Amino acid sequence: MTNSDLAAVVAAVRERIDPDEEERRALAEAAAELESRVHDALAELPVEADVLQVGSTARGTWLSGDRDIDLFVRFPDDLDREQLAEYGLEVGHAVLPDGHEEYAEHPYVKGDYDGFDVDLVPCYDVPTASDIRSAVDRTPFHNEYLVERLDDDLAADVRVFKRFLKGIGAYGSDLRTEGFSGYLAELLVLEHDGFEPLLQAATDWHPQVEFDPEDHGTRTFSDPLVVIDPTDPERNVAAVCSAANVARLQHYARDLLADPREDLFFQAGPPALDAEAIRSHLDRRGTTPAAVVFDAPDLVDDQLYPQLRKSLDGIADELDRRGFDVFRTELFAADDDAVLFVELSVAERPAVERHVGPPVHVRQHAEGFYGAYENGNGYYGPFLDGDRYVVEREREFTSATKFLTSDALFDVALGKHVESTLREDGYDVLVGDEVATLAATFGAELGRYFDPRP
Amino acid sequence: MTNSDLAAVVAAVRERIDPDEEERRALAEAAAELESRVHDALAELPVEADVLQVGSTARGTWLSGDRDIDLFVRFPDDLDREQLAEYGLEVGHAVLPDGHEEYAEHPYVKGDYDGFDVDLVPCYDVPTASDIRSAVDRTPFHNEYLVERLDDDLAADVRVFKRFLKGIGAYGSDLRTEGFSGYLAELLVLEHDGFEPLLQAATDWHPQVEFDPEDHGTRTFSDPLVVIDPTDPERNVAAVCSAANVARLQHYARDLLADPREDLFFQAGPPALDAEAIRSHLDRRGTTPAAVVFDAPDLVDDQLYPQLRKSLDGIADELDRRGFDVFRTELFAADDDAVLFVELSVAERPAVERHVGPPVHVRQHAEGFYGAYENGNGYYGPFLDGDRYVVEREREFTSATKFLTSDALFDVALGKHVESTLREDGYDVLVGDEVATLAATFGAELGRYFDPRP
Repeated sequence: MTNSDLAAVVAAVRERIDPDEEERRALAEAAAELESRVHDALAELPVEADVLQVGSTARGTWLSGDRDIDLFVRFPDDLDREQLAEYGLEVGHAVLPDGHEEYAEHPYVKGDYDGFDVDLVPCYDVPTASDIRSAVDRTPFHNEYLVERLDDDLAADVRVFKRFLKGIGAYGSDLRTEGFSGYLAELLVLEHDGFEPLLQAATDWHPQVEFDPEDHGTRTFSDPLVVIDPTDPERNVAAVCSAANVARLQHYARDLLADPREDLFFQAGPPALDAEAIRSHLDRRGTTPAAVVFDAPDLVDDQLYPQLRKSLDGIADELDRRGFDVFRTELFAADDDAVLFVELSVAERPAVERHVGPPVHVRQHAEGFYGAYENGNGYYGPFLDGDRYVVEREREFTSATKFLTSDALFDVALGKHVESTLREDGYDVLVGDEVATLAATFGAELGRYFDPRP
Repeated sequence: MTNSDLAAVVAAVRERIDPDEEERRALAEAAAELESRVHDALAELPVEADVLQVGSTARGTWLSGDRDIDLFVRFPDDLDREQLAEYGLEVGHAVLPDGHEEYAEHPYVKGDYDGFDVDLVPCYDVPTASDIRSAVDRTPFHNEYLVERLDDDLAADVRVFKRFLKGIGAYGSDLRTEGFSGYLAELLVLEHDGFEPLLQAATDWHPQVEFDPEDHGTRTFSDPLVVIDPTDPERNVAAVCSAANVARLQHYARDLLADPREDLFFQAGPPALDAEAIRSHLDRRGTTPAAVVFDAPDLVDDQLYPQLRKSLDGIADELDRRGFDVFRTELFAADDDAVLFVELSVAERPAVERHVGPPVHVRQHAEGFYGAYENGNGYYGPFLDGDRYVVEREREFTSATKFLTSDALFDVALGKHVESTLREDGYDVLVGDEVATLAATFGAELGRYFDPRP
């Protein structure tokens, strides 16, 4: 079944995202020049090596405007790691004299050439993907697999699918997004032989959904989406993809097929909110927001976001456990600021809490419990509820604010660097309308928070 | 093992509860005179019947000061029920000229004789307890069973045990108390061959605890305590006894054996509270009490209390379900007033509530849910939480008071007559410090509420 309305929408999207001849030519010329420079640099080294362009710009799946050129320099796999790094940097600096060093599994050089962002990454030239010595060694195999299989039509569909994922906010395998990587998008289009058949299939997925293009998978996974890497039977390419992002793809796939329209590919998101608009939402909702605000630890996003998420979950769980019902949570981070945002249905509790003891017939425990509370003044009881002793004793924290500003916050399992930052640099707690001041830094994020969409 | 301190306490208790010679003689004389009058009245009737004294005063297990004489008139079991009732009332009025009619399974006459409360109850003279035509027919068999087995020592121990049950608040098989009946107390003392061995055993009970003196039980029960009626293999004499009252006996049995003292047999309970004391407790606790106050329906206690309890549980469950966390509940009834008392930890909720929809992959439900909320203004969302749609919509009741004063109260499963009373006669809802006004009628009950003991 082909949907002619969808076809028209896709054509319109392609008008906007397909690189034109000039862009393709400029990129090809830049890549060729860079490869030539690499060969020159390699000629100076006492080692045999080759260079390979990889990534979306190597296989025609980049979107117009993307300016990334990834060149992998493959060294013999009997080199030790130090030499690999040394040679890699030597080539990198020769090719990109103004480049700077970054670090993934090895150090590598990143720099600008003719308006392109160029990564020059050293790796080992291993016989198969099963022999890799570091994660980057896998990339040439991915590249080879896709280049062999993606013709121009499929490459175009990959571009459309990637634009769709960007439009719905599900593109990116970074640990902030937890979405679909470019490689995953390419494999899914390949597996379904096109964009529209992939969408049709996604509408009826019942996660866990598993694809194994080479039919060689050897492990089981618990992720909602499993795509076994065609170059590595042990690896789920979709391991990072969250249940929400799988559901998001399903939701918008249904939406697009039912009502094809271009704007789903280019969603802008709700407008940013100012302080007044935030106060107005809080007034309408009647909840009590509390924000733990601090200087973000100096970490890359893939380390920062998991730590922020762990900290937020830990705090929210502990608030819930203490009777402060959590309505919704979110984390915000930008530049140097981080916010753990907890919106509460219940922000105050009474001075007493119920403490249920053992059944009276469990004699040793029951006598211990009763003895511990007998003749004391700080509580009501013990009395019986059914066959159990119960006391009503003083509650440790009668407000969420008191908990958040106490040392008990550090009994929660926080991200390691978040914990040290909170301890050493301190933090602010904003409660109620005070959170409206966050609009200055996080107006856009709060706009999404108060206008949430799939 | 005999506990000499306990023996001394029991002796002191017996000083206070054993009927003395004069009391026994007065009772015997009254009973004999009443029996003689019954014989005279029966002589006027065209039927053969006999009379039997039953109950605690018939078997020496009454406590000094009890003034109940129960006489059962046994008619042939081929009489129809109307004739039984007619003859029974005729005898009753002849014996107790100033008596009045009451109604259990049959009508019977109740009246005063020489300071004694006399019940004159007609029943059928059936061959065995398995042949009974109404519940009262069983009583003569109970009487016969116990009279044959309770010697003076055991009867004395029954009196002590009954006084102990009264002291701890667990005496009575009425549906207000849900405790131990006199007959159950007698069977337990008989089964354990005395008061102290019974207490020793109770300290280590692990409910369900089952006794079957005649080893003839044919059914299984779910009650915490099961004592198969020696005169009826199908009946659990302890069916009414609640888990809390079984636990209560265990608790105080341990207490008495560890620290024998007379006051456990004559506990007064905490003092009544005035309005100021109630406000002081509420202030200390920081909770929000709410009381539904109404004229008690005109029912006997055994009908009233189950209906009040059902109503209270229904209201508390619904408050909890709506997010108003219930801390403790109690029901008060006296004279014509009834109160369903609900102490809340959370009495207010925000204007919004979270409504979790189906997982996106359950396509039909998911599309129905999303369609129902799409493009509306009254809520936030739908958005995704994991693989599910969620909306935040307007909460129906933002305060417990609003719920309690609304018609939604009648969607709760209330006791039948409670519901009609609330509907027809209306009710008041007292909230917060307003409940202190209940001190005027329920000061003693609130005294127990705010000084709860096992």
